[in-house]
Amino acid sequence: MALSVPLHVIKIGGNVIDNSQRLHYFLKDFSELEGAKVLVHGGGKVASDMLNSMGIEPLMIEGRRVTDIETLRVVTMVYAGLINKNMVAQLQRYGCDAMGLTGADGNLIRAVKRPAELIDYGMVGDLAADGVDVARLSGLIRMGLIPVFCAITHDGKGQLLNTNADTVAATLATALSAVFSVNLVYCFEKTGVMRTMDDENSVIRQMSHDDYRALSRQGIVAGGMLPKLQSAFNAIEAGVKNVYIGKAEELPLLKEQLFGTRLFK
Amino acid sequence: MALSVPLHVIKIGGNVIDNSQRLHYFLKDFSELEGAKVLVHGGGKVASDMLNSMGIEPLMIEGRRVTDIETLRVVTMVYAGLINKNMVAQLQRYGCDAMGLTGADGNLIRAVKRPAELIDYGMVGDLAADGVDVARLSGLIRMGLIPVFCAITHDGKGQLLNTNADTVAATLATALSAVFSVNLVYCFEKTGVMRTMDDENSVIRQMSHDDYRALSRQGIVAGGMLPKLQSAFNAIEAGVKNVYIGKAEELPLLKEQLFGTRLFK
Repeated sequence: MALSVPLHVIKIGGNVIDNSQRLHYFLKDFSELEGAKVLVHGGGKVASDMLNSMGIEPLMIEGRRVTDIETLRVVTMVYAGLINKNMVAQLQRYGCDAMGLTGADGNLIRAVKRPAELIDYGMVGDLAADGVDVARLSGLIRMGLIPVFCAITHDGKGQLLNTNADTVAATLATALSAVFSVNLVYCFEKTGVMRTMDDENSVIRQMSHDDYRALSRQGIVAGGMLPKLQSAFNAIEAGVKNVYIGKAEELPLLKEQLFGTRLFK
Repeated sequence: MALSVPLHVIKIGGNVIDNSQRLHYFLKDFSELEGAKVLVHGGGKVASDMLNSMGIEPLMIEGRRVTDIETLRVVTMVYAGLINKNMVAQLQRYGCDAMGLTGADGNLIRAVKRPAELIDYGMVGDLAADGVDVARLSGLIRMGLIPVFCAITHDGKGQLLNTNADTVAATLATALSAVFSVNLVYCFEKTGVMRTMDDENSVIRQMSHDDYRALSRQGIVAGGMLPKLQSAFNAIEAGVKNVYIGKAEELPLLKEQLFGTRLFK
């Protein structure tokens, strides 16, 4: 396949999934986006609500969910079952030929259980780009299918693993760069990366890797944005053409390149 | 594709799924079965347990589950998430390139919501062979994938539907008969169809459609076996080559045609 064929890998997070109205509009916008595309979705608070209702206390360490066996059962039900299949049915309604997947399906994303060192995160998977079966996945895309991934992977030895959805999106985008010209799109709650916190008029429209280094030295981008941007630039260095960070509601602006902040090499 | 390429469609029910030891052995046996194959699985009592634990009373009418919106959420979680993805991960462990699917995925099985007449079964789907996308499904099989279906389908308008797993298996087998030489295999709790009830030595090894008509006239096959056999012979009349009915544990005997009762035209 010619490397010039564009492909969008779009990550949608829990804040949109938790709001059925916002999710509805997002799925409609996603279905109208032209060309090859892959959707990766996070979990939202449905899993936490479900764990609570079953008397299982969600345990977070440094913002990451610790996944014991009981928690893995619940996230597998909620992410791979409830959320994934309802999203697929909605997308099909809009004529988008979605296929819902975990990394275990077709062995598409093989992960490694995170070693229990200082913190034991439990049944959590770490990813590398060579864990993605690019030939198989691009074969599905060539059939006209739109893969919709939840963030559950497997270790190839029979164990499902809970995985970070941002990382799944970045890993898929990086791996698919071998056969497509990939744009990775992170939808989050803000319009983009801002010069001045909470000033929507200060969105930085374009940022090269050098710009990023300068802006972080000057302290203009800081805090929680730093690891997000660093991992985006890692994906770019590994072959992803552009990374966009912006608001789910503004997805239609992607067409005119007016969506959020564009990161590039 | 030459019609002579054999394909097995195998249905496994709740009685095996509920027993992790039996399920383990079944999945190993299934993975060792040569050639193209499709697995269809039922639900088991996990869904009923989950509904109970959430305070939702399972409602059955004439042995069929009434599926309200809350029940549909739970069966979607349990069938499409928990059971399906754990089976896929186990099959992958045994080198069987399984892909877990609902009918919504890739629009593979489109159903029609059962009209509410005397009884309103709720979000339940009825199937017809032309609701199966045979080209798409056989494309996946040609890629070397082993489709693993749970009995959730969709109506193409955004609604997931709970569907009878026996019917999903028969419908897939019938539709795939257009491109494969299909053997449909029902795994249930008995060794096969028996002449004398509960006498495992009286298993009828072969039964043509004419044999069936004679045996049912004579009252030798009766009761709950009748609708099962009738639907099997319907599938045979519609193009399925053989239907086997037998015990999950004896699946390896399929190779030597010593599995259960073989039904044929």
